[in-house]
Amino acid sequence: MKFTISRKDFLEKLNIVSRAISVFSPLPALSGIYIKVDNTQIELTGSDSNLSIKSHIKKDKYNLIIESSGSIIIESKYLLEIIRKMDSEYIQFDLIDTSKICISNEKGKFILNGIESNEYPNLDFSAPATIIQLKNEQLKQIYSQTAFACSDKDTRPVLNGVNFKANGDMLFCSGTDSYRLARKKIQLNKAYEFNITIPYKSLSEVVKSLNENDEIIDIYIDSKKAQFVFNDTIIQSRLIDGIFPDIDRIIPNNEISSMTVSSHEMASVIDRTNFIRNDKIHLIKLECSESQTHIKTNSNEIGNSDEVLTTCQYNGENIQLSCNGTYMLEAIRAINSKNVKLVFAGLMKPIKISDPDDDSVLMIVVPVRSYD
Amino acid sequence: MKFTISRKDFLEKLNIVSRAISVFSPLPALSGIYIKVDNTQIELTGSDSNLSIKSHIKKDKYNLIIESSGSIIIESKYLLEIIRKMDSEYIQFDLIDTSKICISNEKGKFILNGIESNEYPNLDFSAPATIIQLKNEQLKQIYSQTAFACSDKDTRPVLNGVNFKANGDMLFCSGTDSYRLARKKIQLNKAYEFNITIPYKSLSEVVKSLNENDEIIDIYIDSKKAQFVFNDTIIQSRLIDGIFPDIDRIIPNNEISSMTVSSHEMASVIDRTNFIRNDKIHLIKLECSESQTHIKTNSNEIGNSDEVLTTCQYNGENIQLSCNGTYMLEAIRAINSKNVKLVFAGLMKPIKISDPDDDSVLMIVVPVRSYD
Repeated sequence: MKFTISRKDFLEKLNIVSRAISVFSPLPALSGIYIKVDNTQIELTGSDSNLSIKSHIKKDKYNLIIESSGSIIIESKYLLEIIRKMDSEYIQFDLIDTSKICISNEKGKFILNGIESNEYPNLDFSAPATIIQLKNEQLKQIYSQTAFACSDKDTRPVLNGVNFKANGDMLFCSGTDSYRLARKKIQLNKAYEFNITIPYKSLSEVVKSLNENDEIIDIYIDSKKAQFVFNDTIIQSRLIDGIFPDIDRIIPNNEISSMTVSSHEMASVIDRTNFIRNDKIHLIKLECSESQTHIKTNSNEIGNSDEVLTTCQYNGENIQLSCNGTYMLEAIRAINSKNVKLVFAGLMKPIKISDPDDDSVLMIVVPVRSYD
Repeated sequence: MKFTISRKDFLEKLNIVSRAISVFSPLPALSGIYIKVDNTQIELTGSDSNLSIKSHIKKDKYNLIIESSGSIIIESKYLLEIIRKMDSEYIQFDLIDTSKICISNEKGKFILNGIESNEYPNLDFSAPATIIQLKNEQLKQIYSQTAFACSDKDTRPVLNGVNFKANGDMLFCSGTDSYRLARKKIQLNKAYEFNITIPYKSLSEVVKSLNENDEIIDIYIDSKKAQFVFNDTIIQSRLIDGIFPDIDRIIPNNEISSMTVSSHEMASVIDRTNFIRNDKIHLIKLECSESQTHIKTNSNEIGNSDEVLTTCQYNGENIQLSCNGTYMLEAIRAINSKNVKLVFAGLMKPIKISDPDDDSVLMIVVPVRSYD
């Protein structure tokens, strides 16, 4: 194996495949990047066995000269460090023996101990039958508007993922930790029927790997895995088993009142009170009437606050309820719109939060009882 | 106590005094900022008992309206959070009772539980007799060129500080952890005789508190404390007891060879090999001759490297020696010049590192034995 490649191109692909690599890998080979070279391309693979990424650097698309083929596994963090810090335009790779590689430019060389390529696990990158296509921007929005609401606790694994449910030509993407919910609707170009849950951490790596040139992402799915294909790269994630909660049953249908407020103002007011906590929980109390809406907090230990929302327009009967301020703040920020609309269905009923100018995204925050 | 002040001005002063406050204070009052208001000014004090900072906001210099005097202690982190996040130009402070304060603007209010001011320890801010003056830039250079070499271990407390030693009208500032040394010389405007060691952490807080308008810093010293006075602020640090090592005896006088090299190249070459470590230590080997100078590394586990310094000019007998690459890199970066000069005195003799165009700064790195 011997090749010369543009440092910048190689680094870009390395950065992508290294996202799948876990620092604490039980299998030594999986802390490395598997490099395989044939006459036409370099194939880089990284995996933590749940998430696997394979990326190709093809001779006809990149500044790449291949002199001989071969393969090796190289420790990901060392390889990245070298390629990031070398300052030449091109770098040369030379297999010395089956587990040793020389990386060099005109000024110097590194000889790195690797692992023989036959120790790499056999990963199945075959593509599932069902394929949907999403735009780069859509996938980024799905992630930013749903993943934050997923649970990061181990108690109910299915809540550690974003649920993708196709109902005809409508795709519903939902994240929930059972105290709040985030849902994004996407119009598909044809009808599908599936219901899968993708770990939010896998989605995060997919989104980080996208660049502006990757306009359309092909997503291949079956009941076991989801594959994201773009820019000569396959990112493949195992799915989470288990039945995702039925979202539609949680969303209230009635409405007793609603308010529209500047997202910036509401987020600022909540954020300012973030340090006033009870048992580490940031509780806010909304006191809404058509004349004035207050956000209040209270902690016996720290103190209290009372602020008026000056941009608020409130319609309906007076209501006072408390909710987790962090959840409300994250929902408002994820909606990322000029104004937000809050719809109330009753005292202990879930609060709907949405963008008044876009019905594709819906957040739900469940109120909590407070006794003050 | 009641006053209205520009949020920006108040925040600037708060940021300075809060630097002295430790998160883990044994005395509850010391996790707070002591606010004292009289007819002419606000006085803010923060302390961890080793480092104490007092700053004044005077009525005649700031946008400040004082309606009544008084004092209270308020938890530093809550106070900072509120003042940072409130979005009005002015904020009003109102003492409700001896241990409760209302902070408000036109839109809302925070009521914070504080501590009665008489619980604050009595700090002695009287000024020692000896005064020296340093320019802002000089103090920053002393810090950036010496503090990095101080020890952060508890074994020899005197090495946790930067030694300030005046010998006539020359001030020598030195930091060492006993494996390397950094020394900065400053010309004073008159003769002094003192030898004190200031904790490098205190110096760090002083330097962070300086802004560009603070041109001259008055430093008052005696055998117990050092006081830095600028911009209506006093930063006062206890000194470290113990005898600082005699630096002059460590600096070699003879020279068998020397090299001059681009700082950028030398730093880059060392930095690239940073991951090639033995027992977590980054050892580099310099192989110098008049024809070529190599920097090599070797680790049985990870691999090895060999790079030539293309900008190096070497004069004298051939030499091969090993030293800690991290120490060498930090010394070169702290010198912060276009080129660096290395002077060798022999195989296991300390290496002198300096700026060939400025003799005010000198670094020493002690070589280590290597058996490869």
